[in-house]
Amino acid sequence: MQKSAAREIRIKKISNANVSDEDDLIAVEEPLEIQVQYQSDEKQIRKSISVTMRTPGNDEELATGFLFTEGILHDRNQISKVGTDIFDENKVLVTLTEHEVPKLQTSERNFYTTSSCGVCGKSSIDAIKTVSPFANLPDDLLVPAGLFYNLQNELKKQQEVFQNTGGLHASGLFDLHGNIILLREDVGRHNALDKAIGASFLQDQLPLNQIILLLSGRASFELIQKASMAGIKIVAAIGAPSSLALQLAEEFNITLIGFLGKERFNIYSGSHRIKI
Amino acid sequence: MQKSAAREIRIKKISNANVSDEDDLIAVEEPLEIQVQYQSDEKQIRKSISVTMRTPGNDEELATGFLFTEGILHDRNQISKVGTDIFDENKVLVTLTEHEVPKLQTSERNFYTTSSCGVCGKSSIDAIKTVSPFANLPDDLLVPAGLFYNLQNELKKQQEVFQNTGGLHASGLFDLHGNIILLREDVGRHNALDKAIGASFLQDQLPLNQIILLLSGRASFELIQKASMAGIKIVAAIGAPSSLALQLAEEFNITLIGFLGKERFNIYSGSHRIKI
Repeated sequence: MQKSAAREIRIKKISNANVSDEDDLIAVEEPLEIQVQYQSDEKQIRKSISVTMRTPGNDEELATGFLFTEGILHDRNQISKVGTDIFDENKVLVTLTEHEVPKLQTSERNFYTTSSCGVCGKSSIDAIKTVSPFANLPDDLLVPAGLFYNLQNELKKQQEVFQNTGGLHASGLFDLHGNIILLREDVGRHNALDKAIGASFLQDQLPLNQIILLLSGRASFELIQKASMAGIKIVAAIGAPSSLALQLAEEFNITLIGFLGKERFNIYSGSHRIKI
Repeated sequence: MQKSAAREIRIKKISNANVSDEDDLIAVEEPLEIQVQYQSDEKQIRKSISVTMRTPGNDEELATGFLFTEGILHDRNQISKVGTDIFDENKVLVTLTEHEVPKLQTSERNFYTTSSCGVCGKSSIDAIKTVSPFANLPDDLLVPAGLFYNLQNELKKQQEVFQNTGGLHASGLFDLHGNIILLREDVGRHNALDKAIGASFLQDQLPLNQIILLLSGRASFELIQKASMAGIKIVAAIGAPSSLALQLAEEFNITLIGFLGKERFNIYSGSHRIKI
């Protein structure tokens, strides 16, 4: 049984002097533990990698997306099996193929273990350079400005849970004609993106260098970091970017758009990819 | 020299078919490393506790607020000195008074080390029960519903950086008459709250059980966890709460208000404190 992304609850609605008891939907937030299993020195090792507060749904994508964007796995073929614990739906086990080991104990270890909490920008940027198989792909993308005006609309049309709870972030992958390919939602914006990247990773569709990533909220450092790991070259956010997000986008030659509205947006970096 | 919370940059503004190069402000996001110094077995120990991506400003409040809400420190008097590194403004050192040690290696260790990334709800709720000096304070608060209508306005009036960058979360502390006492902002919503709680902690004003906490965005599990640590009994959010935030609020008898607008809001828990 798939856990639900929204839960019905009873609330008191206050409006002016009126009170009413009503049914309402609330976004579900629960912990997901990501475990990796592999062989080392002929022993079978099972390691707990992370616990993240997430909205249930697409958990196997989330787990593999997280392992990829954190640099712990780099190739779809390293995975032999991904499964949810039958006794506990808040646990996903990723089993590696023979001779494959997760990349945990390298010099970039600090990047892996702390990027969810926040990391030192400089060492993290260096780590991505070392780790991402796709961080510096060449490209000659050129997208007409008008294409962006409609993206938010498309995202909203697809964003079912958000409509109901107002509580979820979304990450949408669009092709270069502005058609939505994939949408993932979560209470955590980083989880929504990990789910979208994880889905692509599991379908062996990385790098995403022919994709526009649309973020429903703000563009933080961490989201640009994850996008960069997946080879994404154009990121558009409905909200504002942060200074470190911009710095990272510039460093990796990513086009960063913010405050995307119906007929307006700001270009923060990489304006050469936008045809005006 | 205090680092700035916003930075001026040059962007391309696209509006319909018009393009213009303009100056704009962007919210600054940089890593802050929190270190604690104390004596153990006659040796001086300096330990790095966490690195968080934050907006510069009120860093000493952020550091001490974080140490308190994570249960690592519990009393103002444990601290002899808080200071920013003169060579690196992205480092804060909290020096403890003699014989005081940070609470790092207890059975709740898992709670401390992972709550920024996400934690298991159950073990974390248990940990708060053990750790917070104020989690179960009795109270007889009764606040008229009409008082809440104006809070958002007050917050916006004070929220200087947000007005300019659109990129910051805010946490506001209000008294029971609806007057704003303190406002803190950050790119990270948990940091904004840690700054607000840290300011109160440093001024020895905990518990905050006669305070209304206003959150500029959504109410996540982590924010209710931090509020609960500080003894806060009424939390109002402009955005939606998550299911685990609600569960935690119910468990700690916290009044949780969401979707706070000018003349409306929803009560998710603890409606006995709201006079309608």
